[in-house]
Amino acid sequence: MKIGVIGYGYWGPNLVRNFTELDGTEIKWCADKRTERLALVKKRYPSINVTEGADEIFSDSEVNAVVIATPVSTHYSLAKQALERGKHVLVEKPMTRTVAEGEELLAFAQEKGLVLMVDHTFIYTGAVRKIKEILDVGELGELHYLDSVRVNLGHFQHDIDVLWDLAPHDLAILTYLIHEPPQYVSATGADHTGSGFSDVVYVTVHFPNGFIAHFHVNWLSPVKIRQMLIGGSRRMLVYNDMEPSEKVRVYDRGIRVTTEEGIYSTLIDYRMGDMWAPKLDNREALSVECEHFVECVRFNKIPRSNAAAGLSVVRLLEAASKSLAAGGDRIRV
Amino acid sequence: MKIGVIGYGYWGPNLVRNFTELDGTEIKWCADKRTERLALVKKRYPSINVTEGADEIFSDSEVNAVVIATPVSTHYSLAKQALERGKHVLVEKPMTRTVAEGEELLAFAQEKGLVLMVDHTFIYTGAVRKIKEILDVGELGELHYLDSVRVNLGHFQHDIDVLWDLAPHDLAILTYLIHEPPQYVSATGADHTGSGFSDVVYVTVHFPNGFIAHFHVNWLSPVKIRQMLIGGSRRMLVYNDMEPSEKVRVYDRGIRVTTEEGIYSTLIDYRMGDMWAPKLDNREALSVECEHFVECVRFNKIPRSNAAAGLSVVRLLEAASKSLAAGGDRIRV
Amino acid sequence: MKIGVIGYGYWGPNLVRNFTELDGTEIKWCADKRTERLALVKKRYPSINVTEGADEIFSDSEVNAVVIATPVSTHYSLAKQALERGKHVLVEKPMTRTVAEGEELLAFAQEKGLVLMVDHTFIYTGAVRKIKEILDVGELGELHYLDSVRVNLGHFQHDIDVLWDLAPHDLAILTYLIHEPPQYVSATGADHTGSGFSDVVYVTVHFPNGFIAHFHVNWLSPVKIRQMLIGGSRRMLVYNDMEPSEKVRVYDRGIRVTTEEGIYSTLIDYRMGDMWAPKLDNREALSVECEHFVECVRFNKIPRSNAAAGLSVVRLLEAASKSLAAGGDRIRV
Amino acid sequence: MKIGVIGYGYWGPNLVRNFTELDGTEIKWCADKRTERLALVKKRYPSINVTEGADEIFSDSEVNAVVIATPVSTHYSLAKQALERGKHVLVEKPMTRTVAEGEELLAFAQEKGLVLMVDHTFIYTGAVRKIKEILDVGELGELHYLDSVRVNLGHFQHDIDVLWDLAPHDLAILTYLIHEPPQYVSATGADHTGSGFSDVVYVTVHFPNGFIAHFHVNWLSPVKIRQMLIGGSRRMLVYNDMEPSEKVRVYDRGIRVTTEEGIYSTLIDYRMGDMWAPKLDNREALSVECEHFVECVRFNKIPRSNAAAGLSVVRLLEAASKSLAAGGDRIRV
Repeated sequence: MKIGVIGYGYWGPNLVRNFTELDGTEIKWCADKRTERLALVKKRYPSINVTEGADEIFSDSEVNAVVIATPVSTHYSLAKQALERGKHVLVEKPMTRTVAEGEELLAFAQEKGLVLMVDHTFIYTGAVRKIKEILDVGELGELHYLDSVRVNLGHFQHDIDVLWDLAPHDLAILTYLIHEPPQYVSATGADHTGSGFSDVVYVTVHFPNGFIAHFHVNWLSPVKIRQMLIGGSRRMLVYNDMEPSEKVRVYDRGIRVTTEEGIYSTLIDYRMGDMWAPKLDNREALSVECEHFVECVRFNKIPRSNAAAGLSVVRLLEAASKSLAAGGDRIRV
Repeated sequence: MKIGVIGYGYWGPNLVRNFTELDGTEIKWCADKRTERLALVKKRYPSINVTEGADEIFSDSEVNAVVIATPVSTHYSLAKQALERGKHVLVEKPMTRTVAEGEELLAFAQEKGLVLMVDHTFIYTGAVRKIKEILDVGELGELHYLDSVRVNLGHFQHDIDVLWDLAPHDLAILTYLIHEPPQYVSATGADHTGSGFSDVVYVTVHFPNGFIAHFHVNWLSPVKIRQMLIGGSRRMLVYNDMEPSEKVRVYDRGIRVTTEEGIYSTLIDYRMGDMWAPKLDNREALSVECEHFVECVRFNKIPRSNAAAGLSVVRLLEAASKSLAAGGDRIRV
Repeated sequence: MKIGVIGYGYWGPNLVRNFTELDGTEIKWCADKRTERLALVKKRYPSINVTEGADEIFSDSEVNAVVIATPVSTHYSLAKQALERGKHVLVEKPMTRTVAEGEELLAFAQEKGLVLMVDHTFIYTGAVRKIKEILDVGELGELHYLDSVRVNLGHFQHDIDVLWDLAPHDLAILTYLIHEPPQYVSATGADHTGSGFSDVVYVTVHFPNGFIAHFHVNWLSPVKIRQMLIGGSRRMLVYNDMEPSEKVRVYDRGIRVTTEEGIYSTLIDYRMGDMWAPKLDNREALSVECEHFVECVRFNKIPRSNAAAGLSVVRLLEAASKSLAAGGDRIRV
Repeated sequence: MKIGVIGYGYWGPNLVRNFTELDGTEIKWCADKRTERLALVKKRYPSINVTEGADEIFSDSEVNAVVIATPVSTHYSLAKQALERGKHVLVEKPMTRTVAEGEELLAFAQEKGLVLMVDHTFIYTGAVRKIKEILDVGELGELHYLDSVRVNLGHFQHDIDVLWDLAPHDLAILTYLIHEPPQYVSATGADHTGSGFSDVVYVTVHFPNGFIAHFHVNWLSPVKIRQMLIGGSRRMLVYNDMEPSEKVRVYDRGIRVTTEEGIYSTLIDYRMGDMWAPKLDNREALSVECEHFVECVRFNKIPRSNAAAGLSVVRLLEAASKSLAAGGDRIRV
């Protein structure tokens, strides 16, 4: 399997490194508009062909798959062209700039019978895969809330706000973990640089069954926090991605609600039990994901982070952007 | 100075203990409806008089000041009676159940020339007093945002929701630190027990100058988090109340925004410098506060957490409650 | 049961407070040489009788038990007198200044049929009681090592070194957890104040079966660390007393040693499994201990921290002091 | 500059990657006895020549420098041969198995006028370089002690014990930071696998001026700890390598010792001031080190981790091994 990678900026080098390490795949091309980035590719991997535009990659009939690691505004157009030329596609998150673009790409890939996968890296981590297992067997009971904080200093983007930059990670995890479709989205935030792009955003996603998900994304935090709380009726979970080990902790804690006859108020009781941190698979998430992409292409499988998942994330982002512009109004998804 | 304490439940014992340790004050009375609580007072402090109702305290002309540590629904009425009898008052947070009650109490105390102080304990901690100092000298530059998380498992209240239970702490800190009046409040949340009281609430407070404050209060978190981030144009600050020491950390980190002539996009630059954790006064906050109350009574001073501050907090709570009921709409304060 | 407390310095107030809260006990006397300490007792507990010397307590036939919270040099003499007058005794750690004094007290208490208990507070914590349970059922397998760090800034003592000040806590835990008698002790350290008392000490205790225990006690550490690692053949445990919750963590981690035929080197394999933090009893350790003392006196029971345990600790301290003086030589216990 | 790397096991890949990224250097050869490791080199770097033995590298007159990343027992012989053929050498830590071997290599490199540098990676970290700066300007005052803990589960070595595996890191840091020559070494430890190699070792290094350094190295810890405390008369420092940021913290804490006339006991006073965490250079230490090696070769400079430093570390290791075998006796260095 021969692969062409478009974009060798921040994330491209990780994709190239991981595909290079896989058995049975070869990076044939790497494209980037900046010649100094291409020189770096050449120094590291003398056998990879480099090119400034993507056309040589699209035209090369030996290339089976294209990996797109460029700014989000170019995703739609590059993915479309790649699919037209019969290439399978792995595209960076968020999949597209709009729901309309995403819907079109999804339909087009299905029509062509090609794999269109989105790089939702976090759902391939040992931590999130373990959380998925825990939730799917009902370990936490009925889910009450998911609260996520993803903040740090930088990297300010010039073409998107902090919502479109950081929230795709969390919304991809939400989409992966929660099967229910969301109902409303509301968002508040602020832009402190005058660039027109918010740097602090809070998003609330409401579900019909009372489950609530909340996201804090922030480019202006002095400390890096990546923490998720998931509360259920039976147990509760903390996923702290900054911990070097024991990133996922399950707490046998909860409340018992009882309504005694004759007593009009609700009685609430605490339960404080043990804590348990499951062993996690420590493989690099991107390596697991690249392997999964290759397997989907080879055996015609549906990727875990397929175009439908990519579209769900874009749908939430678009709704949140609308709410942000409207001063926090609830937007129906 | 002789004091009567009304309410010996969760917080009352701390108030009694601290006033007992002060020089020149004496707890003369302690009232509670539950005889087993009065028995406990007697075992610990044989010399304190106990009573089931508050009347004996109000009628005792030797009593100069009354401390009210009862459920919020009783604050207005008890404080009103105490002021009527010419007693100075220290009342638990939140000061009242409504803005109307708060306004009336404030006016009444002024009319009577009596001290009406609210127990906003956190503003008397070494940590918050140091943060106030740092902000007041402009150390952080222009303020961008304040983000606070105050979550743990329990203690579910039966008469108020998590907003009225936990947020007063943070809103009192906000009111103490920030001189600008807030403009809008919006809030989202959920009630998972069917009790009619939200157990997870998110509040955003918008200020005219772009400053934004956000609060996450939650009774259903498996872990206890009490962390506040304050971002400014020059420096940023983290206040982690769960740290045994170095609770306040100031980061010499920020961004530099430049707009070059001829370049239409904004250039943003990071600055990553040292971190500094100032030494804090470790005295128990409540002890500092009780001393301050006594001093205000004696020398006719205006308390740091006076009735106006208490009213500001109630105003924000009332607005947040309205927003919560209206599905997150912005409410003008 | 009426109790006399001798010494109202650093720890005495905690003892008085806890015995005061117990049902069925009464602090009748409190002695201290410093009149300002006695004034403080009177302010807090007007009903307790105060006295500068211990004689009034010893002479009071109503007093059943005496609690000794004075400097270690006075323990032997005060405990001896109390036992002579037929009082049960709870004495601060370390029990005595020398093994000889300890042996004499132990024998004397047995002869008199009185309870002589040592205040090894840590063995009454929920954490150490849980660790004891875990070890006693063989959860960790064969024990390999115990490593303890107890360091902070202060409180320099004027009559003992850091070994005699801090190590009794850890040696009491060791004595409680490990049934095997130790064989050798070696210690190194340094005195940086010129006071003749070491402020940094390292102690190694060797056991016949290969188990090794090591202690780092230090008055000159900028941060407070209280952490213990216990390694076993099946599982390993971390006890971090500075954690607000989950102080005890059991790791399903270990090594498998195999020696294959024909291969002369040992093969070692890792096992990395889950982590588990058991729920702990959160009651104040000193409250549990005071209750235990009262129960031992009433029902003529042998205390968990009896004079024999107190003597074991003094034996290890004496051996470590000898090794320290001899530049680290192994001293047989 | 053309380089040959011998050994592509655990650390070799990091060396190859870093030298590959440098400007002006080229890895010409990579040697390893295991063909599967050579295949991996070829997959990653098709342009590097691979070989099973080192002879081809020694014979290649184009090769200027040899990097040795093989087991410690082979260091002496490989480094000797490389120097004989006129190659500069960068060798893994510890430099040699014995002091005698180390002395011979050092003399031989000097005679040949070649660079002989030891890979003491930690002294090239931003953290240790900053600590060096802080100590060199006297920020901490007179140094009292250095206490280091370096423990984790694994990686058991088959040819050396935990002392020779992990302690070189800490002893290299000690040698780099402290100019005074050590006087005595004592060590205790235990071997729990029956392999003849200790897996838990404690080393104390005594200096003439009262300064004391202590090291805990352990292959059987369930958690990874890499923490160093350095106590001085004016300030104290904590270096926690597991922290994602603020690895170095300087505490304005200390003690003041005063001896008043007429009072025979020493008075000790605490000072608790601010804490300060300097900004650190975040470049990968090995990258800084590889650059330094190249610079030393090119401009004939003496490396920071030269053969004399390597020998000091081996001298301490040899003394500690002797003490360990002798049951903890002090060994003069």
